[in-house]
Amino acid sequence: MQIAILLFDRFTALDAVGPYETLGRLPDSETVFVAEQAGPVRTDTGNLALTADRTLADVTSPDIVVVPGGPGQTPQMENTALLDWLRAADATSTWTTSVCTGSLLLAAAGLLKGRRATSHWLALEYLKTFEVEATGERVVIDGKYVTAAGVSSGIDMGLTLLGRIAGDEHAQAVQLLTEYDPHPPYDAGSPEKAPAHLVEEFRSNSRFILR
Amino acid sequence: MQIAILLFDRFTALDAVGPYETLGRLPDSETVFVAEQAGPVRTDTGNLALTADRTLADVTSPDIVVVPGGPGQTPQMENTALLDWLRAADATSTWTTSVCTGSLLLAAAGLLKGRRATSHWLALEYLKTFEVEATGERVVIDGKYVTAAGVSSGIDMGLTLLGRIAGDEHAQAVQLLTEYDPHPPYDAGSPEKAPAHLVEEFRSNSRFILR
Repeated sequence: MQIAILLFDRFTALDAVGPYETLGRLPDSETVFVAEQAGPVRTDTGNLALTADRTLADVTSPDIVVVPGGPGQTPQMENTALLDWLRAADATSTWTTSVCTGSLLLAAAGLLKGRRATSHWLALEYLKTFEVEATGERVVIDGKYVTAAGVSSGIDMGLTLLGRIAGDEHAQAVQLLTEYDPHPPYDAGSPEKAPAHLVEEFRSNSRFILR
Repeated sequence: MQIAILLFDRFTALDAVGPYETLGRLPDSETVFVAEQAGPVRTDTGNLALTADRTLADVTSPDIVVVPGGPGQTPQMENTALLDWLRAADATSTWTTSVCTGSLLLAAAGLLKGRRATSHWLALEYLKTFEVEATGERVVIDGKYVTAAGVSSGIDMGLTLLGRIAGDEHAQAVQLLTEYDPHPPYDAGSPEKAPAHLVEEFRSNSRFILR
């Protein structure tokens, strides 16, 4: 089974690395990082690059597609080469997945029309404009489409899908080895839980995260 | 403030990316990825490389040092150049930190002697052999030394230290933007919670993760 994780300029690192570190531990699988051009691809902070070992042309029929998000997703929504690749990969994939604003790329490619899906909490209203039934749930499975909410939710998505494919015990083993027993020092990880003024501040500057 | 995240062959990606995505959002800071040689550094799976933009020689006095772990940590425990760099960086750092078996590298450099520290649950007994008071807690702060348990715990460590340095509100904002409201699909993230036979299996094959 081939897992293709898409990279593009100014993606968010954890969006990609969460599924890589969990779903990527699928037995008898190969994980490939893919981008328009092979080589280092810079993240949103500019301080880190992940290597795309393959070009879009190299990866024609992945079994699982993983699309991260990040501020760099916006220009990609008009990148015909990338959207064409998504549609072609999706035509033969077993699972098509996204983390954070990666679901906006799937939506821009026309793949989520009429489906339930999630995204970063700041992107849910925008997602609705693509005729998507957007929900704030952390992980949403609708048919073969698996979308995750913001950034860190890709870990939960990866484990969930790993369990579906390889069984609960394998997913539990990966959870144990990655010691994923989260104890956040604050309880501010969703707009329902965070201090209201922070939520308002980000809502009024949502371009901060979407552009 | 300069945050230096160390990379070495066969490190675990999430060990490094967890603190990068949280602590790296410290205001007025610069995060640099550093390794013996600049360029792509392969992770433990071989499927991914992160770019080290700086060599050890380029980074002489970081304010915060972050040392990830991973199977590749074992040979580094005898790498004099790397251990010398850790000792020199620590001599002037404000915070010296690790994730997973990265604490074994700090211990091998002699930096944790007599201190409380944590590590991946499979590495705690080994950590004790360096005269470290090893504990299974998820994040341990002893003076300027901040150690985290396995892999995913670096996210909790990063947010904890971010709060200490930049204040609770900034850390909460980062938690909200990374939507870190974890909902693991299983409750198997620690040896106390996981199915006992999985814990035993990994304990009897601990070289799997330590070598």
